Amino acid sequence: MTISDNNTIVIFGASGDLTYRKLIPALYHLYASNQLPSTFSILGVSRTQYDDESYREKMKQSLRELEKTEPEILDAFCHHLHYQALNTSDVDEYSKLVCKLDQLADKYQLEQQNTLFYLATPPSLYGVIPSCLAAHGLNDESNGWKRLIIEKPFGYDLASALELGKQIHQYFEEHQIYRIDHYLGKETVQNLLVLRFSNVMFEPLWNRNFIDYVEITGSEFLGVEERGGYYDGSGAMRDMFQNHLLQVLAMVGMESPSAINADSMRDEIAKVLQSLQPLTEQDLRNNLVLGQYTESEVRGQFLPSYRDEQGVADDSRTETYVGLKMFINNWRWNGVPFYVRTGKRLPTRVTEVVVHFKKTPHPAFAENAPENKLVIRIQPDEGIQMRFGLKEPGSGFNVKDVSMDFHYQSLAETQMLTAYERLLLDALNGDATLFARSDAVNACWKFVQPILDFKQDPQALFGYACGTWGPKEADQLLERDNRKWRFPCKNLTDTDYCEL
Amino acid sequence: MTISDNNTIVIFGASGDLTYRKLIPALYHLYASNQLPSTFSILGVSRTQYDDESYREKMKQSLRELEKTEPEILDAFCHHLHYQALNTSDVDEYSKLVCKLDQLADKYQLEQQNTLFYLATPPSLYGVIPSCLAAHGLNDESNGWKRLIIEKPFGYDLASALELGKQIHQYFEEHQIYRIDHYLGKETVQNLLVLRFSNVMFEPLWNRNFIDYVEITGSEFLGVEERGGYYDGSGAMRDMFQNHLLQVLAMVGMESPSAINADSMRDEIAKVLQSLQPLTEQDLRNNLVLGQYTESEVRGQFLPSYRDEQGVADDSRTETYVGLKMFINNWRWNGVPFYVRTGKRLPTRVTEVVVHFKKTPHPAFAENAPENKLVIRIQPDEGIQMRFGLKEPGSGFNVKDVSMDFHYQSLAETQMLTAYERLLLDALNGDATLFARSDAVNACWKFVQPILDFKQDPQALFGYACGTWGPKEADQLLERDNRKWRFPCKNLTDTDYCEL
Repeated sequence: MTISDNNTIVIFGASGDLTYRKLIPALYHLYASNQLPSTFSILGVSRTQYDDESYREKMKQSLRELEKTEPEILDAFCHHLHYQALNTSDVDEYSKLVCKLDQLADKYQLEQQNTLFYLATPPSLYGVIPSCLAAHGLNDESNGWKRLIIEKPFGYDLASALELGKQIHQYFEEHQIYRIDHYLGKETVQNLLVLRFSNVMFEPLWNRNFIDYVEITGSEFLGVEERGGYYDGSGAMRDMFQNHLLQVLAMVGMESPSAINADSMRDEIAKVLQSLQPLTEQDLRNNLVLGQYTESEVRGQFLPSYRDEQGVADDSRTETYVGLKMFINNWRWNGVPFYVRTGKRLPTRVTEVVVHFKKTPHPAFAENAPENKLVIRIQPDEGIQMRFGLKEPGSGFNVKDVSMDFHYQSLAETQMLTAYERLLLDALNGDATLFARSDAVNACWKFVQPILDFKQDPQALFGYACGTWGPKEADQLLERDNRKWRFPCKNLTDTDYCEL
Repeated sequence: MTISDNNTIVIFGASGDLTYRKLIPALYHLYASNQLPSTFSILGVSRTQYDDESYREKMKQSLRELEKTEPEILDAFCHHLHYQALNTSDVDEYSKLVCKLDQLADKYQLEQQNTLFYLATPPSLYGVIPSCLAAHGLNDESNGWKRLIIEKPFGYDLASALELGKQIHQYFEEHQIYRIDHYLGKETVQNLLVLRFSNVMFEPLWNRNFIDYVEITGSEFLGVEERGGYYDGSGAMRDMFQNHLLQVLAMVGMESPSAINADSMRDEIAKVLQSLQPLTEQDLRNNLVLGQYTESEVRGQFLPSYRDEQGVADDSRTETYVGLKMFINNWRWNGVPFYVRTGKRLPTRVTEVVVHFKKTPHPAFAENAPENKLVIRIQPDEGIQMRFGLKEPGSGFNVKDVSMDFHYQSLAETQMLTAYERLLLDALNGDATLFARSDAVNACWKFVQPILDFKQDPQALFGYACGTWGPKEADQLLERDNRKWRFPCKNLTDTDYCEL
């Protein structure tokens, strides 16, 4: 799919990490594969002093370092790059931006000034930039669309999220706002919808009558790396759980949308998130496990404790692990536990959903009958696996656990789009399906707010050694229900997902 | 599983093809893998004059030719072989058999005279032998069990089947009679039961609400080979359809049995067969296609027409192909067509069931949504395959047909038992689950009798070239319903089942 509208992409935070590591490479790939319109320009904006030429040089250099590039294509791409130095907090300076945009419109002979503003800046500017843009009429769509991409975090807690929403909504309509969650750009997350609703085989089973429980795991082997300073003020709850994992849960749990379009889809996502059973004091004590990694030797490598990471306070009580048993209070899911966990320094990097079906109801066939499971692997090696029972060869009717699997990569004739490529393309095309809508974001914050408050409790945090699957209390969370977390390594055929 | 009861296996037709090609090799394998009891003997019976020694020599020689044998094991096995020449139609001669059995009981110091009589004889003797055995008290179970294995065909039509049943039941109880259908000894046929009832994922979908139609195919590439004389009096309807394919259909269609034992299982099989919608005159004209192969060149090899086969009449009207659209009249299946076909000289040898699910009910997701199918491959390369839709990588929600499969061989740690090994073992253990019961056999004949009558109709037979999938009328049978037979080659992963 290519883009028909000519447009200008304005990147705030143009000299930052995200821009040169993710956005420019994504745009380069889209350009190289002819997915951008013939007429488009990219305008970098930040405080740093560059001119068009020096900015192009810098981006060219970083692209060469990070990606495989073709010299000719790279040159042609960089011709579309422009730069405007600007103090983004100063509303008066935005006249420079208006002026530059007019120049570009002239240069590219644009009839419509379609503009995508990408806020690759610290969250503190999420309220400021939109108001400054509006002060100069840059929110006005009478002369071409104006869209705003905002990176997470969308707020820091419920109150700040509501406040941020209010600020932005003063100047931009909801349909102009694209809250990017790169998790939703993953093919398999979207595939969940196709799997469920394009096939007749799964949906009849997809409810409390047939599903026993659901696991959602988003684990990382990495620690906080250079992001200690940021992470210590955030934690796993805000960094992974509140956004990514709840979005995945919503796509597992949602009703079928009335149509395949952004609003229908996001209506259903919002409904699930609004149906989450609020956490009581008792839930927080019994069904929540927060953890923080402690030093350990993993595969001969010494890994420091979280508190010894650079930028982290010595007495930090920030959680690097969250495990939660939660419920969706609606007709479809009532009583079905969702066990959701995420953590750093776990044995491997994997994101997956495991749908555990109930046992066969017939006692004659129940002996040795293995559990039926559908494993939906989101990363790495996106794919799905079904586990069920077949007869063991030979006399009698002994049953053995077997599996069938499908690897998503086998379907991709060409290289699959990365999440950023996919989402940039969608935003340019005005398809907001995979972007978080205000009501969904607020519902997530509303659900996790009691956990954010509870984190202060001195009893709330447990240690776990690097390279383990979190605190033993997280195992007990399932053991109490006679269940076990799936061990997600070495299971999806012969690929070993363990980085251990 | 090994056998605890010591026993004697009496084979009538001991000098025939079936005995030395199938039964003796099967018994040899069971012996070599320690699955027979320490004390057992095999007594060959036929008209031909052998003594123990010469019979052993003959069997030894044929085993060496047909199988990989170990000299030591072969010698030890042959020591268990004995022989008794006998005119099997003459009741008086059976005193020799009694005498020989007593000798063997002495020799092997048997406390109980457990005896399995295997009737590997022409069907004309199926009524005679049981009456002769009974005349000498060899049906009497007071001194050990007495079981009768009968090879198909069990009758020639409804009347003869009922008559045969009546004859045998005069002397043997139903629980003593084991009607062997080697199709039911195939792991995957039995696996159907485990697949359906040990898992919770399939059974909720296994009915008219979710299944659109079912295909059952039993095809062969071979022609009639040396069996022309027999086949010409039988035809595909009797040879394959009436027994094998209807049994497979019954296992696809049956309700869950109240327990895993022979009677519960066979109760359910009989129920399905008794629920087959009787064929009307109109059904015979519209829903039945009978065919006979005509000469053709296949892969450079000239294949003669059926009428030119050895032993076949020049003006034969015997069908070598049957295609039938049929229904099961019950709560679960009403209105779901079962398309069943079998034939010789089709492109490949394959037996499979294809369950076609309905399309997704949601119009928004129905565009390009592929059909959901479950392919259950019975032979060769037993296994199952699921076909469904996943999202095509990239923007939008395009759906692509994908598949997951499972190959049964991967489950077998050791060599799987052949059908004859498995069924002999079951009969020795008194497990009649996989043997056809009288009521099921009669229900099959009752269903097919109108077809047997209709075969006489001069309009009823269509030609098809060797190496094609039957008469074009068989394709039209499905085309009328906007459906197509599955082309079962090159589809289950990379193995090519086409012998073409």
